[in-house]
Amino acid sequence: MASAVSNSSASSSPTQNLLPVTRKENFSDWYRAVLNAAELAEPSSVRGCMVIKPWGYGIWQQVQRQMDDLFQREKCCDNAYFPLFIPTSLFAKEAQHVAGFAKECAVVTHYRMKLDKDGKMVADPEAALEEPLVVRPTSETIIGVSMHNWIQSYRDLPLLLNQWCNVVRWEHETRPFIRTTEFLWQEGHCAFENAEEAGKNVQKMAQVYRSFMTQVCALPVILGEKTPSERFAGAVQTFCLEAMVQDGKAVQAGTSHYLGTNFAKAAEIYFTDDKNEKQLAHTTSWGVSTRLVGTVIMTHADDQGMRVPPRLALHHAVIIPSGHVGTQERDAYIAKIETLFAEARFADRPVCVKVDGRDMHPAEKGYEWIRKGVPIRLEIGAREAKNGTVTIRRRDQDMKQSTIIKADELVATVIKTLEEIQSNYYTQAQDFLNSHMRTDITTLEELNAYFDSPGIPGFVRAKWSGDAEAEELLKKEKKVTIRCIPTDQSGTEGKCVLTGKPATTDVIFGRSY
Amino acid sequence: MASAVSNSSASSSPTQNLLPVTRKENFSDWYRAVLNAAELAEPSSVRGCMVIKPWGYGIWQQVQRQMDDLFQREKCCDNAYFPLFIPTSLFAKEAQHVAGFAKECAVVTHYRMKLDKDGKMVADPEAALEEPLVVRPTSETIIGVSMHNWIQSYRDLPLLLNQWCNVVRWEHETRPFIRTTEFLWQEGHCAFENAEEAGKNVQKMAQVYRSFMTQVCALPVILGEKTPSERFAGAVQTFCLEAMVQDGKAVQAGTSHYLGTNFAKAAEIYFTDDKNEKQLAHTTSWGVSTRLVGTVIMTHADDQGMRVPPRLALHHAVIIPSGHVGTQERDAYIAKIETLFAEARFADRPVCVKVDGRDMHPAEKGYEWIRKGVPIRLEIGAREAKNGTVTIRRRDQDMKQSTIIKADELVATVIKTLEEIQSNYYTQAQDFLNSHMRTDITTLEELNAYFDSPGIPGFVRAKWSGDAEAEELLKKEKKVTIRCIPTDQSGTEGKCVLTGKPATTDVIFGRSY
Repeated sequence: MASAVSNSSASSSPTQNLLPVTRKENFSDWYRAVLNAAELAEPSSVRGCMVIKPWGYGIWQQVQRQMDDLFQREKCCDNAYFPLFIPTSLFAKEAQHVAGFAKECAVVTHYRMKLDKDGKMVADPEAALEEPLVVRPTSETIIGVSMHNWIQSYRDLPLLLNQWCNVVRWEHETRPFIRTTEFLWQEGHCAFENAEEAGKNVQKMAQVYRSFMTQVCALPVILGEKTPSERFAGAVQTFCLEAMVQDGKAVQAGTSHYLGTNFAKAAEIYFTDDKNEKQLAHTTSWGVSTRLVGTVIMTHADDQGMRVPPRLALHHAVIIPSGHVGTQERDAYIAKIETLFAEARFADRPVCVKVDGRDMHPAEKGYEWIRKGVPIRLEIGAREAKNGTVTIRRRDQDMKQSTIIKADELVATVIKTLEEIQSNYYTQAQDFLNSHMRTDITTLEELNAYFDSPGIPGFVRAKWSGDAEAEELLKKEKKVTIRCIPTDQSGTEGKCVLTGKPATTDVIFGRSY
Repeated sequence: MASAVSNSSASSSPTQNLLPVTRKENFSDWYRAVLNAAELAEPSSVRGCMVIKPWGYGIWQQVQRQMDDLFQREKCCDNAYFPLFIPTSLFAKEAQHVAGFAKECAVVTHYRMKLDKDGKMVADPEAALEEPLVVRPTSETIIGVSMHNWIQSYRDLPLLLNQWCNVVRWEHETRPFIRTTEFLWQEGHCAFENAEEAGKNVQKMAQVYRSFMTQVCALPVILGEKTPSERFAGAVQTFCLEAMVQDGKAVQAGTSHYLGTNFAKAAEIYFTDDKNEKQLAHTTSWGVSTRLVGTVIMTHADDQGMRVPPRLALHHAVIIPSGHVGTQERDAYIAKIETLFAEARFADRPVCVKVDGRDMHPAEKGYEWIRKGVPIRLEIGAREAKNGTVTIRRRDQDMKQSTIIKADELVATVIKTLEEIQSNYYTQAQDFLNSHMRTDITTLEELNAYFDSPGIPGFVRAKWSGDAEAEELLKKEKKVTIRCIPTDQSGTEGKCVLTGKPATTDVIFGRSY
């Protein structure tokens, strides 16, 4: 390959950070700085709701499309759409569910606005609804009505449904993508003949999520089961995917719940089995939201800004025209380079190369795309046009580093580089997780000391005897919870790190978002 | 091609209709019967809101994916996401817009529910919002805030945004897909430097819609401009795509609005031009909703049920295993047939073939798939397995008609057949439109008589002098409106069909949904 590695740059790049604050200085401020500098999202005029800007929405759109394709390939579900509003009477049917959600819902009480005598717009008192409507915080209850109608016999099972939609939970503390009043998600809702099949589904979906997060999002995640106190309201069993972000905290990136017959009882989802007997269905639900985008940002961004994993990038590469002389030849050359990518594919989708033709200084554009974290920047000026080359810069390398390659090797190089970057991001995140996972802590004193220590405490993998009281105390005193009971259990015998009692179960402790 | 056309069927198919009511008997009842029999949608427990069932949602998902791909190919927009809720103060900013929408909005007034002393769930009086929130009926106002923030100079223009989302309008009369309280849509919102560029955008998007509706939805649509009285609230110019469904009525299947500087003024969207002067931006908005699905159903369904245009079908073909003998060989043969389609593509997406393995009588399955309108049914039994053939039935042919072809010709035949069906549906709809379009009516008496006539009055293309009063009277007396001023004007001189005054403008009259 006719290539040359160079550390000199046309623009006099600063080596300093491109953000006003580093991860180490203040992780929260850094996260907001990334969202802002990479144009991912911004606050809106509605409390707790964000505007997802095109570069941020591009990540979610890739999640949505590729996850939906995966669902179809794996025959996980049929997509459908259920109403945004839930009548309160319906919502009130499942008691535990209500306890979990009723506190934090947007309530529609009127169907008309009017101008009052002061010219202010108010809800029209004459247009009060007889029964208020809840804006869905999740759709178990309203989908339950359809399941009740659609399921008669065992021949109608399994019923595998999913919807991509928005939901609203009135949160008190919000953080863009991680916890917002309104968010986007997919919610799968399935019904089965028995506990065994429902249980298989819950595990299958957790595996599907893990494979997606690992391969597409470059996120090393821990798959495990929640302890009773951390389960979804109304669930019998909850599986989760826990990611570790760069301040060592956990983010629950996806969940898969077995609901037993709790929801089926509330929604009267009965079927006639093959012995002609009436049975309650067993239901599951599973979901992934825009929180996954926040997890990707908190995992992969650095002190220069965002780094988008290639498989999630709206644009895989950006062409930045450089120089002011010979622009006509340069532009003709750029047009030719663009056509080279017409048939190129990376990870099952077309390679998307954007030409940034804005009337701005090339160095300024370069910094902007570093902050946005486009995987590859291609610089093309008069020299490249003359030599038939392209200068490549990678987001996973120092901004000053570049490689010059021949045009006829460009497409293959870009595809190979995208693979390398995807793989590097995963490896880096995996290394971070491994180096922030303590497995040598065996007493409560050590555990407390670890989570009290300055710097970045991460996860602790230790034994737990199942004592819910000790779990609760730890949560109250240290804000440390059992993130999950990982599925890869060692099976060894030991002592519970909280109580000293004999214990065989391995659990993961950590602080979480 | 080793093929044979046969009119005999394994099952003794009835020639009668598969729906309880025909189009001719009662179009409204027929439409609901189609929705029900084809499992497209059903009413929900919330007034005016529907549940979109998987087979109906599949059509919308194809619209969404393929239209979004088209938007990207034609560089129409970047996708983003804006909040569901709009503060009332913001909503009140644009007076005309308010007049058009304020009457019919869902209003959120509380953020918490509680159980009252009777154990009934009510909005918690202690959780009243200071400022009520409107559930977006359309997002001009909230996107206006972002445009205000994002646009500083002419370098930031054009700004081309789009979002796929749900909106709510409190409608009094609803009809699934055609007019529902909540619906799904895409709304494009763009800002430009001047009227000329904005005007070009409005026309471009109308053309993009026409091409999509024609090619993907098999809908012949009339592209034209709305008269002032029929425009979107706050628009200066509205282009629309008018379809004719099988009762002769019009459905507005898509719109593209030039908003002048009306919204820019309300939202303060200013930019500095290249002479460093402050200017108001010119904005546009354009949208297509789940109403398009209703239009497709009302256009293509027949008295047997739905007929899904192949380009919109979730499954292009269904394999129906037949017979009870030799099922092991048959199933092995079906598995082999399935693999033949692994690389097959139709209209830029993989050919999707579903095997219907349910424990039901094959004839019953056949009727179900006819009612659902899957384009192609493939019947495979012991005879086919033995002979290495497949029996093909097409939804655009009589249910008794079939063709037997060799397995090695199957994929090519299926792809060719899908093309033919797509084309046939378009031609049939075009023929219907042509035969229900009168161009020979020149007086008000004739016009009135035509729309009073029994049977199916359709559209009338005639001259109009621009008289708004006469237009209003016709609407009031006959419920007939000017659907649009078509873009293909003849330019001839004539007399206004309403007033007899000299007129050159051709317009389309019709009744509409």
